[in-house]
Amino acid sequence: MPKVVVLRYGHRAVRDYRVTSHCCLVARAFGAEKIVITGETDKSIAESVESVVKKWGGNFKVEFEEKWEKVVEEYKKKGFFVVHLTMYGLPLEKKIEKIREKRKILVIIGSQKVEGAVYQKSDLNISITQQPHSEIAALAVSLDWIFQGKELGKRFKGAKIKVEPAEKGKKVLKG
Amino acid sequence: MPKVVVLRYGHRAVRDYRVTSHCCLVARAFGAEKIVITGETDKSIAESVESVVKKWGGNFKVEFEEKWEKVVEEYKKKGFFVVHLTMYGLPLEKKIEKIREKRKILVIIGSQKVEGAVYQKSDLNISITQQPHSEIAALAVSLDWIFQGKELGKRFKGAKIKVEPAEKGKKVLKG
Repeated sequence: MPKVVVLRYGHRAVRDYRVTSHCCLVARAFGAEKIVITGETDKSIAESVESVVKKWGGNFKVEFEEKWEKVVEEYKKKGFFVVHLTMYGLPLEKKIEKIREKRKILVIIGSQKVEGAVYQKSDLNISITQQPHSEIAALAVSLDWIFQGKELGKRFKGAKIKVEPAEKGKKVLKG
Repeated sequence: MPKVVVLRYGHRAVRDYRVTSHCCLVARAFGAEKIVITGETDKSIAESVESVVKKWGGNFKVEFEEKWEKVVEEYKKKGFFVVHLTMYGLPLEKKIEKIREKRKILVIIGSQKVEGAVYQKSDLNISITQQPHSEIAALAVSLDWIFQGKELGKRFKGAKIKVEPAEKGKKVLKG
């Protein structure tokens, strides 16, 4: 399984709080190791995601970095392949084999306006449909394709709380 | 391909504006025919989605209905199979074959607290991972599994604007 880190580009405090929170939780649930949020620092998001990690397990990390360029450079040096998700990119379904060959992947998800340099510095610009929708959805579907659905049953170490799948209602295991 | 309608449960005006908007756009982009938003009516969402449909094509519809029960009853009468997405449900990957057999599917996506009756009245409660994340992600991944990735290349009739997939940057066709 490749190692995946997510870069959330251009976070704006307050306005993007809920969408960026969803991005963090999706990154964690679908098997990424970390999210680096660039733009404005927003510690309340990190705290809220950390409280999920404490309860639900695993080692998912949230980091902040003002400049996205610095993150891309750092991860390129570490051997990460940079995939930018954008409705203008090449179709996921046509490029998935190439992405799956990589052992380390940095997935960039943008907000409303992403500057041209992100397209240029990425190794691959990938579209999840060529329609306007949601970076949360684009991230989830990409991770699901990268991990081939195996992430859906991922177990998180050290969980204090676990769901026991049920036909109706809720079954939660504690301890 | 099955016919899919999405029910967004418990929309709260203002607070849920962005998340529900993402749900609408994901429903459209990933091949659903319609979204019915229950809870508070919020015409600005419908207007914003309609302006996307006008530009990007297709026949996607947004409707409002105060009571979710009414929508579920109506669609059950029309022969729809009701699938509620919840982290407490049975794993998608174990139930997908059963869902794919259906010709008409009503997919329910909730907000923070979904009342017990939704679990009871649904034909199937399905989890997309057993972790907390995002109804936007759950919807996108479910539709992608239901349509087996074929929705990613869906064409929308009457589009005034289309993306031409590009390696770098943006190519948009108009007319």
